[in-house]
Amino acid sequence: MLKQYLLAPGPTPVPPEILLSMAMPIIHHRSPAFLPILDSAKEGLKWLYQTKNDVLILSSTGTGGMVGSVTNFFNSGDKVLVINSGKFGERWTKICQAYGLKVAEILVEWGYSIKPERVETALRKDPDIKAVFVQATETSTGVYHDIEGLGRLIRNFRDTLFIVDAISALAAHDLRTDEWGIDIMVGGSQKGLMLPPGLAFVSVSEKAWKENETSKMPRFYFDFRKERECLATNQTNFTSAITLIIGLNEAIKMLRKEGLENVFERHSKFAHATREAVKSIGLRLYAKESPSNSVTAIEAPDGVDGQLIYKTLREKYGITGAGGQDKARGRIFRLAHLGYTGIFDVITGIAALEMVLKELGQPSRLGVGVARAQEILID
Amino acid sequence: MLKQYLLAPGPTPVPPEILLSMAMPIIHHRSPAFLPILDSAKEGLKWLYQTKNDVLILSSTGTGGMVGSVTNFFNSGDKVLVINSGKFGERWTKICQAYGLKVAEILVEWGYSIKPERVETALRKDPDIKAVFVQATETSTGVYHDIEGLGRLIRNFRDTLFIVDAISALAAHDLRTDEWGIDIMVGGSQKGLMLPPGLAFVSVSEKAWKENETSKMPRFYFDFRKERECLATNQTNFTSAITLIIGLNEAIKMLRKEGLENVFERHSKFAHATREAVKSIGLRLYAKESPSNSVTAIEAPDGVDGQLIYKTLREKYGITGAGGQDKARGRIFRLAHLGYTGIFDVITGIAALEMVLKELGQPSRLGVGVARAQEILID
Repeated sequence: MLKQYLLAPGPTPVPPEILLSMAMPIIHHRSPAFLPILDSAKEGLKWLYQTKNDVLILSSTGTGGMVGSVTNFFNSGDKVLVINSGKFGERWTKICQAYGLKVAEILVEWGYSIKPERVETALRKDPDIKAVFVQATETSTGVYHDIEGLGRLIRNFRDTLFIVDAISALAAHDLRTDEWGIDIMVGGSQKGLMLPPGLAFVSVSEKAWKENETSKMPRFYFDFRKERECLATNQTNFTSAITLIIGLNEAIKMLRKEGLENVFERHSKFAHATREAVKSIGLRLYAKESPSNSVTAIEAPDGVDGQLIYKTLREKYGITGAGGQDKARGRIFRLAHLGYTGIFDVITGIAALEMVLKELGQPSRLGVGVARAQEILID
Repeated sequence: MLKQYLLAPGPTPVPPEILLSMAMPIIHHRSPAFLPILDSAKEGLKWLYQTKNDVLILSSTGTGGMVGSVTNFFNSGDKVLVINSGKFGERWTKICQAYGLKVAEILVEWGYSIKPERVETALRKDPDIKAVFVQATETSTGVYHDIEGLGRLIRNFRDTLFIVDAISALAAHDLRTDEWGIDIMVGGSQKGLMLPPGLAFVSVSEKAWKENETSKMPRFYFDFRKERECLATNQTNFTSAITLIIGLNEAIKMLRKEGLENVFERHSKFAHATREAVKSIGLRLYAKESPSNSVTAIEAPDGVDGQLIYKTLREKYGITGAGGQDKARGRIFRLAHLGYTGIFDVITGIAALEMVLKELGQPSRLGVGVARAQEILID
């Protein structure tokens, strides 16, 4: 028996009470029993998003929400700016290009955060840019981008939409949708919301809805206007992903009980403890600045394959973290502290890492990282 | 306490063993624990579809599969033929039109089945027609279309794709994908497969893959070629809907144990018993020919609102069937016998219907329909 621990940046563990809520007999999505559940989940998402606008609920992975954020607000040939700092920034570019948008990219070195000045320069240079796309947390590098600063800046460019992929940041970072001027923010179920994959969430500002009126791109499945109309009557445009929405409602109840500030504080503390522990072991963080509260990307020691660390953690110790992606593959491995995570998940991850490093012949004193994490987590 | 019974044509009841399989701790979709599950589900779908080709697994409702069946195989301006015999036939038209296809429609009166000759005439008249779209079961009317006959015919038109929405027919009707020349067949999870909503399935023939090579429509989320490549390594293009795929694997195991012929026979028998019972009560079927094995659409007696029957069944007796849609609203109500259904679900539905009719002042001898159903179901 090898007991399993999921410390990946999505999917994340689902609390047993949520799993069991989704194991109840199925109910019909147009029935009086379901409508109040969707209503409650809808209101809860507004609370989590810190927005007065509707948050659409889509039956798809987060990427579906990203695609809809492109196809509902633009026309082929429109110019947009993508902040590309990793695999998911690259995804924004690919989606925009797939739908015929002209993409100007700001390439940010992997492991670094965007300097808002670079965005300002780009927007001043080209007044035709209709939107700025970014990740809140770039999951592939473990970097958090300064969404507040970007929002403050983009607000000065009146016709420019600010579009944020918050799939892996939602619930882990304080993201003030309305206050910070985020026009479109995409979330996903299998991250901070502690649910299985299969739902995407998208908030849309009034400014963005205005752009929707002139957007002529073909769309049918991800038709945000229709979703908004349906949501007003507590329905979704097509068959609702009933079990996942029931789980969503339970997850939001749990988060509400904890309190929004406490949810953010928990993620922040666990991330801090993980980083400090990792450094005390003598490893380097891959995020050179502005590390994310969702996931910590860790550089493999010189001469050690990051994928080997990731695999040994999984195969010998039952800890499923994540490896590196694309150009970071082999150079890093990642441990998440996202969603349904407790103090001893952090300690478990660090303890296992110390043991793996020792086995791989690295100079590693067992317990040092654990002790550092304990110091931080005891408060 | 009002005990609840779900007799809707989707969502359908999910067996407890499947619900519990989905309540197990979440595993990672790129982990060695998940890959054999997806492999097994993938092979199982081929078995259920009676095809040697891959059956793609998409994180969306069935409609997402329909949209992908349009956007992956055509170019804007292409001519297609839609057999529109109800609400879901109309959906094919809307999707095709949303993506700039030129749609020729054969309108079939609601409650009737397509005569293949009409398709032949249309195809002969316009050799540019690149595809024929149809529903296997038109859920809004309870009619099954002659997929075998249509396939035999369309096969003679070499370059024409035959595209079937089998969302509510899959597992309820013997649909021989390869033998009958079905190029693209769409399924959904919350019907005969006894799962919650959230998955779509699409089989694609080699002939259709060839069309894919020249199709230039923008796509990203429903990119069938990428899904096919991923499926070859037992993955999905984006994060898999892990719990639903685990449930899918369990559902297919159950169906395999029952045997494909027995699965079809069960649906056929329950549908037959429902229809005969309904007629013995003195009601008329809405399907004037070729009734579906998935759902029975029943005309409300003269002067009675079909929605009232549907609502009384639900509110007084806890039986959630379905009302009528669009032009059939008020005229009909529907009882399904789809997916995880037993003899006594059929009897429960009929017994409740008799009681509702009596309450609504209709001439109805209690037990007559039940007895007729019993006669059929006893064999």
